[in-house]
Amino acid sequence: MSIFEKLESEVRSYSRGWPVVFDRAVGTRLFGEDGTPYLDFFAGAGALNYGHNNPVLKQALLDYLARDGVTHALDMFTVAKRDLLETFEEKILRPRELDYKVIFPGPGGANAVEAALKLARKVTGKESVINFTNAFHGMTLGALSVTGNSMKRSGAGVPLVHATPMPYDQYFDGVYPDFLYFERLLEDSGSGLNEPAAVIVETVQGEGGINAAGVDWLRGLAELCQRHEILLIVDDVQMGCGRTGPFFSFEDAGIKPDMVCLSKSIGGYGLPMALTLIKPELDVWEPGEHNGTFRGINPAFVTATEALRTYWSDDELEKSTRAKGERIGAALQGIAEAYPEAGLTAKGRGLARGLELPSGEIASRVCAAAFERGLLMETSGPDGEVAKLLPPLTVSDAEIGEGLQIIDESVKSVLAK
Amino acid sequence: MSIFEKLESEVRSYSRGWPVVFDRAVGTRLFGEDGTPYLDFFAGAGALNYGHNNPVLKQALLDYLARDGVTHALDMFTVAKRDLLETFEEKILRPRELDYKVIFPGPGGANAVEAALKLARKVTGKESVINFTNAFHGMTLGALSVTGNSMKRSGAGVPLVHATPMPYDQYFDGVYPDFLYFERLLEDSGSGLNEPAAVIVETVQGEGGINAAGVDWLRGLAELCQRHEILLIVDDVQMGCGRTGPFFSFEDAGIKPDMVCLSKSIGGYGLPMALTLIKPELDVWEPGEHNGTFRGINPAFVTATEALRTYWSDDELEKSTRAKGERIGAALQGIAEAYPEAGLTAKGRGLARGLELPSGEIASRVCAAAFERGLLMETSGPDGEVAKLLPPLTVSDAEIGEGLQIIDESVKSVLAK
Amino acid sequence: MSIFEKLESEVRSYSRGWPVVFDRAVGTRLFGEDGTPYLDFFAGAGALNYGHNNPVLKQALLDYLARDGVTHALDMFTVAKRDLLETFEEKILRPRELDYKVIFPGPGGANAVEAALKLARKVTGKESVINFTNAFHGMTLGALSVTGNSMKRSGAGVPLVHATPMPYDQYFDGVYPDFLYFERLLEDSGSGLNEPAAVIVETVQGEGGINAAGVDWLRGLAELCQRHEILLIVDDVQMGCGRTGPFFSFEDAGIKPDMVCLSKSIGGYGLPMALTLIKPELDVWEPGEHNGTFRGINPAFVTATEALRTYWSDDELEKSTRAKGERIGAALQGIAEAYPEAGLTAKGRGLARGLELPSGEIASRVCAAAFERGLLMETSGPDGEVAKLLPPLTVSDAEIGEGLQIIDESVKSVLAK
Amino acid sequence: MSIFEKLESEVRSYSRGWPVVFDRAVGTRLFGEDGTPYLDFFAGAGALNYGHNNPVLKQALLDYLARDGVTHALDMFTVAKRDLLETFEEKILRPRELDYKVIFPGPGGANAVEAALKLARKVTGKESVINFTNAFHGMTLGALSVTGNSMKRSGAGVPLVHATPMPYDQYFDGVYPDFLYFERLLEDSGSGLNEPAAVIVETVQGEGGINAAGVDWLRGLAELCQRHEILLIVDDVQMGCGRTGPFFSFEDAGIKPDMVCLSKSIGGYGLPMALTLIKPELDVWEPGEHNGTFRGINPAFVTATEALRTYWSDDELEKSTRAKGERIGAALQGIAEAYPEAGLTAKGRGLARGLELPSGEIASRVCAAAFERGLLMETSGPDGEVAKLLPPLTVSDAEIGEGLQIIDESVKSVLAK
Repeated sequence: MSIFEKLESEVRSYSRGWPVVFDRAVGTRLFGEDGTPYLDFFAGAGALNYGHNNPVLKQALLDYLARDGVTHALDMFTVAKRDLLETFEEKILRPRELDYKVIFPGPGGANAVEAALKLARKVTGKESVINFTNAFHGMTLGALSVTGNSMKRSGAGVPLVHATPMPYDQYFDGVYPDFLYFERLLEDSGSGLNEPAAVIVETVQGEGGINAAGVDWLRGLAELCQRHEILLIVDDVQMGCGRTGPFFSFEDAGIKPDMVCLSKSIGGYGLPMALTLIKPELDVWEPGEHNGTFRGINPAFVTATEALRTYWSDDELEKSTRAKGERIGAALQGIAEAYPEAGLTAKGRGLARGLELPSGEIASRVCAAAFERGLLMETSGPDGEVAKLLPPLTVSDAEIGEGLQIIDESVKSVLAK
Repeated sequence: MSIFEKLESEVRSYSRGWPVVFDRAVGTRLFGEDGTPYLDFFAGAGALNYGHNNPVLKQALLDYLARDGVTHALDMFTVAKRDLLETFEEKILRPRELDYKVIFPGPGGANAVEAALKLARKVTGKESVINFTNAFHGMTLGALSVTGNSMKRSGAGVPLVHATPMPYDQYFDGVYPDFLYFERLLEDSGSGLNEPAAVIVETVQGEGGINAAGVDWLRGLAELCQRHEILLIVDDVQMGCGRTGPFFSFEDAGIKPDMVCLSKSIGGYGLPMALTLIKPELDVWEPGEHNGTFRGINPAFVTATEALRTYWSDDELEKSTRAKGERIGAALQGIAEAYPEAGLTAKGRGLARGLELPSGEIASRVCAAAFERGLLMETSGPDGEVAKLLPPLTVSDAEIGEGLQIIDESVKSVLAK
Repeated sequence: MSIFEKLESEVRSYSRGWPVVFDRAVGTRLFGEDGTPYLDFFAGAGALNYGHNNPVLKQALLDYLARDGVTHALDMFTVAKRDLLETFEEKILRPRELDYKVIFPGPGGANAVEAALKLARKVTGKESVINFTNAFHGMTLGALSVTGNSMKRSGAGVPLVHATPMPYDQYFDGVYPDFLYFERLLEDSGSGLNEPAAVIVETVQGEGGINAAGVDWLRGLAELCQRHEILLIVDDVQMGCGRTGPFFSFEDAGIKPDMVCLSKSIGGYGLPMALTLIKPELDVWEPGEHNGTFRGINPAFVTATEALRTYWSDDELEKSTRAKGERIGAALQGIAEAYPEAGLTAKGRGLARGLELPSGEIASRVCAAAFERGLLMETSGPDGEVAKLLPPLTVSDAEIGEGLQIIDESVKSVLAK
Repeated sequence: MSIFEKLESEVRSYSRGWPVVFDRAVGTRLFGEDGTPYLDFFAGAGALNYGHNNPVLKQALLDYLARDGVTHALDMFTVAKRDLLETFEEKILRPRELDYKVIFPGPGGANAVEAALKLARKVTGKESVINFTNAFHGMTLGALSVTGNSMKRSGAGVPLVHATPMPYDQYFDGVYPDFLYFERLLEDSGSGLNEPAAVIVETVQGEGGINAAGVDWLRGLAELCQRHEILLIVDDVQMGCGRTGPFFSFEDAGIKPDMVCLSKSIGGYGLPMALTLIKPELDVWEPGEHNGTFRGINPAFVTATEALRTYWSDDELEKSTRAKGERIGAALQGIAEAYPEAGLTAKGRGLARGLELPSGEIASRVCAAAFERGLLMETSGPDGEVAKLLPPLTVSDAEIGEGLQIIDESVKSVLAK
């Protein structure tokens, strides 16, 4: 029995589908300890938008560590944090005419969500929050309460209250008007809906099955929130940092959320880091009212800053992400059309792509077939029925070709059986 | 206006008492960007037990990064994780005859607490948890519900329920029997206390004011939990990893908690990492029932492993921590006795030490006076009335002398006014 | 200042629209202390289906009191309770082939609802309940949590959780399929809807604005509940006891709910009494697990029994209620059509009837005009926009004519202005 | 199988210990249908302070019914209600210099409690309430949340939150200072106690085991509430209306609670009725924010008024209750002393008396032995270990002697075995 089987909790999951001990990683490749390469179309669930051990970021990190730059600093002022804030303002906020203050909420995406929900409730004096079907926002109790997946919810051990799910875009295949039920409940003082402090939304639901909300729907949601004085929180933990093309996934919709949650790829190198962006007028915290030990991981600030400088000084990355995404989307569409009787659907936007298969069991088999062929790809969706593609944004065209070829073969190997 | 004032949320706190931009750090010293050294008796709130940028750990980290070892790996198997688990078993669990399985619950201490609470509720089918007066367990909604501080609780924005506070050791200065109220409520089927799934406790309450529970009290608590079939969770996030002397802070009490939360210094270098240890029979999770993006930060595994090897292969660190702690304790006692009319109290165990001052305002002034003299020291306690000393365990005797000298002067400067 | 103004809480409401001190009452008439008669089309909000001080019931009551029959008996066995149970079985349950056990849950409708919700949660082990938009189930905390009205909800002082509102029949004017959203959420394991223990529904929403669910919708709801193993609770507190024609309001739909709540007119004479009917297999209570002081008000049992014998031994009352209801419905329809530009709507079923007016303010003025003309009629609906008619089922044809005449004039007097 | 066994839910409890079908009742006697008399030392759990079918009240009731006085009137003004309010002010409030406004909260004690808790939360903006060990306040969800009994709590089916139990008077046999824990938690901003809106307390806990709080303790509690700006709610549902001697059970303590809950004997004749008394400045309800069908049961108003006039125009009843109580107390004390090895304890105040037996099982057998001898007496306390005596206040000296004789024999028959 391996030390993993002996010592690690049964809660582990990814290691079940990929029973390999990984050792090294560069760009889009992970390597097993025997040197076997794996093409990574998972990218740390979106935490590695710039690839594994990106050399530019790596050099900045090594330099910082070598010169004994502060590693851990809580929320103290540091040179690295100043660089980060200045760069974030210069490269991200100012060009997009976004006026946000920055909370360092803790190391992970769930912390960014928890801080946003706390502040929304504090500002409005209301407890209730609207989330969407198939939302995923994290595993801590506050974040879990706005997450849809029933298996994960049942892990809470306490009733998850204060959130009411509303239908996400296309939940009824576009047959019914957007926000039909939501707006009716808000307008009807006898509806029984607790008046919400905030709406929390992902523009593309990654864990929920690569469901991409349309820009019209997002605009409609923003307007609805404004009409009813509800704060709009965009959880851009997985879809931000360029995953869908632009830095923020909501840019194409032209909306300006009241709060934005960032994590995963914001640190650039895969080190834990998170930000909660808030409109300045919402900054009503008492000093220390929200805190935490890992809010000042300066090595992550350094790689974050370097990533912003390297990739967000122009629109090259955004353009290439859109182009790569369209290529993959078209290829998936081609696969879907090749099996008309199977009812496959190509989904997604930018480099968040999915292929919906007939069942979770079939999707698992497709991912297993891909793994046998050297490709890491995961399932998502309520029943795990969507094969999900989140390659690094830095993936090369050749790697895309290689990956698509494997996916094509894998689907064939499963559906042909 | 600085970028910090312009862009960072008002929730920041430490930077208010220490208005310096830090740049570099080595061992017990932080350096401002102008090179001014500061003696650090705060140590990342206990996250830097081995000092800033510890050279042994640094070398292991640089080597790992240089050879492109996997950085971010979710809960996949990696060589670095295998090393960590094997080393943790060999250096920590086996010598102490502790039989635990390991959950990687997410990057921070709050994640370790959230996972423990979830699992305790799942195992027992009960929602309620007993916490203690002046407890601190974290800022996410589940962890916050078992935290005592009213200012932090009020940040939740929803009623914090499912937890009932019981008096910590010495809450009534030892005048009344331990667990008097707690056990009576448990035994009385008409008491109105919801039957608890678990008790969560810190052996020394750091944020709560450096309150050190006695070993008898801890044993009594463990026995009470066993008698009533309540799971005992020790939150060793701040007090574990040798802060009180032994690796686990509960070792002197000879108890074996059902679950243990570790974070802060477990990673060794200040990088985010956390573990939840659970008795094997409690490992009833479904795969993926608890997950998260930052559960496999391999650089932290590397420095964690190196720290275990370097510092926990023998009992040198434990002994020196006890000795240093006693020296500091004696010095604080001396200070306390020098101002008999002020009612100062020396508190703590190992290298978690505190000096209780007449008020939070005075404690703040003492810390400010220390900062002027080049010492970083924070307040804690419900009213911030305790000056808290958490130097790195690797602090030198000379540095201890220097720090104590500053504290002595700082107290004098404030109390003499 | 009157004693009422001096001593009674501001929470009083009906006395504001009807500033008269009432003294006596017979049948459909209330009399002010100066002898002024008022035609009562409110009937104790449905608690006086057999009219005020019904002479048959009165005689039985006087006889019982005169011979010192037990008045108050908790849940002890009494002769009066035996008569009631035997009569209820013979006249109500057996002819309708309904197999229910009877809980005496306390004196009022809210107690019947609280007992049903408790038991549904106990049986299923789930907390969540589905209610409907504009539902009204009572003012105690459990009943209030499934009530829609936002003003009443805000009186709770704690967040009302564990209930999720679904759209009632015709909530979207029949444009969208019934249960579209509800069933989709149930089927989608990622929807974020907490799995419900029960659905609680009124077949006609009285307080909600005299919204009558169609029999197809009720059948669809019963089938949905069966498919998803959700308990169906019909709150027949206001609409039971013949208000819509048959004894139970759900009879026309041909459904057999898992639980039925009865109160208001079940006692017959206006004395407090309530029943919760449950399918025998749900009777998993511990003795005394639910109790209360006023569960055995034997004078109410006596009048309840007499009412069952007098009015439910044949189908005369049911037929006459339907006929009277249709007459009133037609008249209200006529009024609605007389003001085509005002958009009035006639609503209801049996002798639960309503006239929806353009606004709550107009509905109030219509009711005030009716009061000036000697008719008691209240508003309902989320904005109080529906003039509600709940005359005693024993109302005479002449009284109906008189009431309709007043309503006609009152509407005219308001809309003509 | 009887109709009771066939049709009535298993939740019934009193009929299990007293398997008799009762028919008539007068004064302190209930009669089985075969005419067997039973001496009633239970008195409807305190709802029949003036005895069964008290002839004075009966006459008033018959007269009112005969002349067709309004029976059911919601919260409309009636002559009977005016009489009640005027009499209540004249006989009760004014002589005691109590300035309260009156809420008609619904028919039962739980409604009085629900209304008080709602209003306390509305006034203070806080959710949390302090209750006491072994409290009993009712079975609706709000009232149940502040009730201690674990069996009854488990019936809720949802976690009961927002209440924290504190030790009642003598919970530790007087060894520790009163309010030690409570006040410490309030004063410590780090205690983790949610700031309470209100304290709810019974001056004598009936269901909890006839625990009588001392006047010093009650005064201490009132002072503590004032110091910390917590509203004090006295639940006088069972102990008010003269049960302990004075009309309000808190009169001897000289305190003036912010709210008082009355029910059970307030109606006089055993008909459902309840009042919530509130200090005028707390009357911040919106009209209709709390309502209910059975708030205007005028026959109960009539008997309530008659009872106030008959029994509370002078201090005769108060004096006789005290004297009778002392006689019973002394007799119970004598019984206790007759079995020194059994550890019996005589408890109570006024005519709320108890004899604590070694176990619930023994107490049940004593009550069963008493029933065989023609005495109705119930158990109470967390384990049912207290035989509880709540005779009508109008019990005669001869009946007291008869009852005590039976109790003496019953205890002997059980303990001698």
